[in-house]
Amino acid sequence: MEHEDKLISLRDALREFTAARDWRQFHSPKNLAMALIVEAAELVEQFQWMTPEQSMALNAEQLAAVRDEVADTLIYLVEIADVLNIDLIAAARDKMAKNAIKYPLP
Amino acid sequence: MEHEDKLISLRDALREFTAARDWRQFHSPKNLAMALIVEAAELVEQFQWMTPEQSMALNAEQLAAVRDEVADTLIYLVEIADVLNIDLIAAARDKMAKNAIKYPLP
Amino acid sequence: MEHEDKLISLRDALREFTAARDWRQFHSPKNLAMALIVEAAELVEQFQWMTPEQSMALNAEQLAAVRDEVADTLIYLVEIADVLNIDLIAAARDKMAKNAIKYPLP
Amino acid sequence: MEHEDKLISLRDALREFTAARDWRQFHSPKNLAMALIVEAAELVEQFQWMTPEQSMALNAEQLAAVRDEVADTLIYLVEIADVLNIDLIAAARDKMAKNAIKYPLP
Repeated sequence: MEHEDKLISLRDALREFTAARDWRQFHSPKNLAMALIVEAAELVEQFQWMTPEQSMALNAEQLAAVRDEVADTLIYLVEIADVLNIDLIAAARDKMAKNAIKYPLP
Repeated sequence: MEHEDKLISLRDALREFTAARDWRQFHSPKNLAMALIVEAAELVEQFQWMTPEQSMALNAEQLAAVRDEVADTLIYLVEIADVLNIDLIAAARDKMAKNAIKYPLP
Repeated sequence: MEHEDKLISLRDALREFTAARDWRQFHSPKNLAMALIVEAAELVEQFQWMTPEQSMALNAEQLAAVRDEVADTLIYLVEIADVLNIDLIAAARDKMAKNAIKYPLP
Repeated sequence: MEHEDKLISLRDALREFTAARDWRQFHSPKNLAMALIVEAAELVEQFQWMTPEQSMALNAEQLAAVRDEVADTLIYLVEIADVLNIDLIAAARDKMAKNAIKYPLP
């Protein structure tokens, strides 16, 4: 569909990828949360010995590595949202509304 | 805009939220990666003492807590992608193509 | 015993603490690894918005919070080593020997 | 010394290892907390697709991998405690006393 939501399309592609490999049996929310934090840690690893300033000035090779880890993190986030039937965007919007109350404008 | 991408709209809302609180100064990729894994861990915490089966049968209260942590994780993922000028969807699609080669169909 | 190893004494105290609360049933290595990373993330959280320099100059309140998170991380590390019958010190010594080969002196 | 504490000896060996490689400059508490959680995640990774039961029945190869990750986690925990002048055992004992109040015996 022309204007189909990109996150929904990604979710559908991941469903197909997972089903084709018979991996759905492993994809409980518990296991997916573990896989997600492993990917988040691989992202953290890219920056662990950098200064904050260095992390803002990545070279092409560093950026490519970071891009892959960001991607893996999103993939597992989409999968965990899918198995729990959570609308990621709606959840983020609701959380931002809570955050706006928790951290009022100065 | 009617068909504007939802992730782009979320990114824009987060930019505004962050700028209004003068938080951009703290949002280096290094710091955002730390904040991201902290949220991912709060998601892991929801499931730590559950069996995989229990994690698939959350009650309403548990699901609401999980939804908030999934949301926080997405929020920081969108922010880190933004400061690094990474297109999240394109990155995930490229990574899926790599994964398809790494894990060929049986 | 006068010269009993302090890590062994800590392990024994944790065994007693856990048994008295009937928590052993939850303490599989999988679950303990999740609990461990949750505590490690609470440690990361203390530092997420600090510069590296600020993290070296904690005030008393910050240091007390960090000390508690370091403690929780050690507690779960001792517990996971215990259920897997791993000697923590011997494991660390063996790993240091590997690291000395991986990162030879300049 | 015959009865020297094993954790203290490990700390001293790590000090020497780090100094010899001129790595101390990178070992702020912030950076060490990042390195610690990266190792904790490598431990989580060993268990992510296992059932809790499987995680209690590791084969020799799996156990060796887990032992190495447990070791790396302890190494960074000892290092972060060292740069912050925290006595790991005393901190864990104090935290257990707090936990005994938080989770009273049934």
